[in-house]
Amino acid sequence: MAPDAAGKGVLLKVDPIAEAFRAEVKDGLAALRHRTPTLIGILATNASPSRFYADFTRKQCEGLGVRFILKEVGSAVKQNEGEEARSDGDGVEEVIIEANEDDNVDGIMVYYPIFGGQQDHYLQQIVSPLKDVEGLHSKFHYNLYHNIRFITPASLASTIPSSKVTQPIIDDIPPPGTVKSIIPCTPLGVVKCLEYIGVYNNILTYGDRAYGKTVTVINRSEVVGRPLAALLANDGARVFSADIDSIQEYTKRPRFSNPTSARQYLPHHTSHLCTLSLKECLAISDVVISAVPSASYKVKTEWLKEGCICVNVAADKNFEKDVRDKASIYIPAVGKVTILMLLRNLLRLSHYNDVSAPSGSEDIIPAQ
Amino acid sequence: MAPDAAGKGVLLKVDPIAEAFRAEVKDGLAALRHRTPTLIGILATNASPSRFYADFTRKQCEGLGVRFILKEVGSAVKQNEGEEARSDGDGVEEVIIEANEDDNVDGIMVYYPIFGGQQDHYLQQIVSPLKDVEGLHSKFHYNLYHNIRFITPASLASTIPSSKVTQPIIDDIPPPGTVKSIIPCTPLGVVKCLEYIGVYNNILTYGDRAYGKTVTVINRSEVVGRPLAALLANDGARVFSADIDSIQEYTKRPRFSNPTSARQYLPHHTSHLCTLSLKECLAISDVVISAVPSASYKVKTEWLKEGCICVNVAADKNFEKDVRDKASIYIPAVGKVTILMLLRNLLRLSHYNDVSAPSGSEDIIPAQ
Repeated sequence: MAPDAAGKGVLLKVDPIAEAFRAEVKDGLAALRHRTPTLIGILATNASPSRFYADFTRKQCEGLGVRFILKEVGSAVKQNEGEEARSDGDGVEEVIIEANEDDNVDGIMVYYPIFGGQQDHYLQQIVSPLKDVEGLHSKFHYNLYHNIRFITPASLASTIPSSKVTQPIIDDIPPPGTVKSIIPCTPLGVVKCLEYIGVYNNILTYGDRAYGKTVTVINRSEVVGRPLAALLANDGARVFSADIDSIQEYTKRPRFSNPTSARQYLPHHTSHLCTLSLKECLAISDVVISAVPSASYKVKTEWLKEGCICVNVAADKNFEKDVRDKASIYIPAVGKVTILMLLRNLLRLSHYNDVSAPSGSEDIIPAQ
Repeated sequence: MAPDAAGKGVLLKVDPIAEAFRAEVKDGLAALRHRTPTLIGILATNASPSRFYADFTRKQCEGLGVRFILKEVGSAVKQNEGEEARSDGDGVEEVIIEANEDDNVDGIMVYYPIFGGQQDHYLQQIVSPLKDVEGLHSKFHYNLYHNIRFITPASLASTIPSSKVTQPIIDDIPPPGTVKSIIPCTPLGVVKCLEYIGVYNNILTYGDRAYGKTVTVINRSEVVGRPLAALLANDGARVFSADIDSIQEYTKRPRFSNPTSARQYLPHHTSHLCTLSLKECLAISDVVISAVPSASYKVKTEWLKEGCICVNVAADKNFEKDVRDKASIYIPAVGKVTILMLLRNLLRLSHYNDVSAPSGSEDIIPAQ
């Protein structure tokens, strides 16, 4: 793991991180003796990244013994000669509803983008939160933003947002009657990578282990950027959330008090407009995470802090080729961890659905 | 209402339409003897259109005897000297949650845009559907898209989408134990205008009164364009939903059957990609509705069908100055009707919340 001969930073592939979670999911599946969970994948376009990701999901599921069924609709369906062309997303809502209502289905994953923008966001709200392995329902975002880590499974069925958490977070063991909330799998995968490389410090108390770290997250989408920035800030980091039009600072530290009381933090992060430029943010960031869906976007290596950690979450490469001239560690992709977070969410949800049944047993929920 | 001296089409201001609904809301309020409903307005930016709309809401509420309380947060708060500037949306989520939990609040309306895009969509999901007078929660969109007109008030509290409607729609009287779903107020306001000017034909059966009409709706946002197009298609119209990148056709008529069976329609519209250009759609449209949030966008008068009806829903004027050279009727703005739909939704929701109480009485729900 030392810098290579040319003095460059470490290029870190996430395979060993994924391997650890693969083992955890395997154990969870073995404990679920009574049945094999079923994951439905919904492919509604002919976009090759979506098809690729569906094939990848199948491979992962088959390797672990999860039942995976791919439903193809719209332009994902092979067109027979003389048949009218189906367009992107045709029939996607119907298969989501069917899967919601099918008691044999434990989890639903939809390959986005389909329509793009608001219409995809609408679809994300149609997936039952009790089967939403991707954690894209606004209920999960709400819990994440408000640092509500433990929930009752029944609360997932209610449209009324939970009241804010009042009890302090002591450890990661859900109080009796509660389970862990589902965290969107891409942001969670990034956090797991940061834990592995020591950005989270286990000497610090649970819930505040990123304290002292400054992080810039580039892109503020509701799917990746904003939840990731909030997650890190709720874990104690100072986070700059950068988007095209603005930079926001997220922190749970009180902003206007005596610096000695910084350990008396708020129950969850607050956000405020930041007056620093991206260049100024990067100059003081220990960690830089980029998730910009564009092949032409690049984080300037010359703006990075010497020895920082860089994580590329986008499908395209958001860092310049010479990023390791400045970065001490560079993670080029996190997808292999993300899929395992999704399968871990599947295990949890299939357990939550069982919780009310007499055979339900808390000990098969894998630790987060 | 005849074309004016210069031979132009009728310029129709919506005041008489608004007046009829004002009377209806007044009657509904009078029947609610036991209490005055409370509407909370939430203003989180210093944008003048939002401030203007908040003042307009207050005036309408005061005129009708609805209690209106404006909560100002973020950049809407007047800044005292030496105070740090608050940014758009600071604290908005907190006041939404407070209003959700306050039993004295019957309705919540938020003045958008605040953050724009996905983050505003997130906020729309945080407002309790039991208080969502604007009808922006995805539950209401789901019901609208699936032509589910009658619901149980309890279903509003569940995140699991209702099963699809199976019984045919006979009239607008909710079957026992059900109430009408809430319809987003801007699309509903447009429908009420189209009813007034005879686009909906009362000779036809309820639920299919726009049959035979071809409508183009320009803009496919989840807030106005798509729900409006779906609403019209579910009422029998053939609708072209035009957006920057594509045109979709919405219809509940079967697409590939004997034309004589067109009255055997589907329970709700389906959508498919349309190969016509906007010019070709406009050439055959009886009604053209534009909701493009841009001052520079204009529907070309020369593309309109002679004698069509044009409705401008956007804050900017989307039609050219000479629109009445082609249009038989031109409605330049619908805001005055929209606000009354919102107040009608407020009355309904305050009633739905009471329905389980023994004093609840179905007869104070105004007819839709």
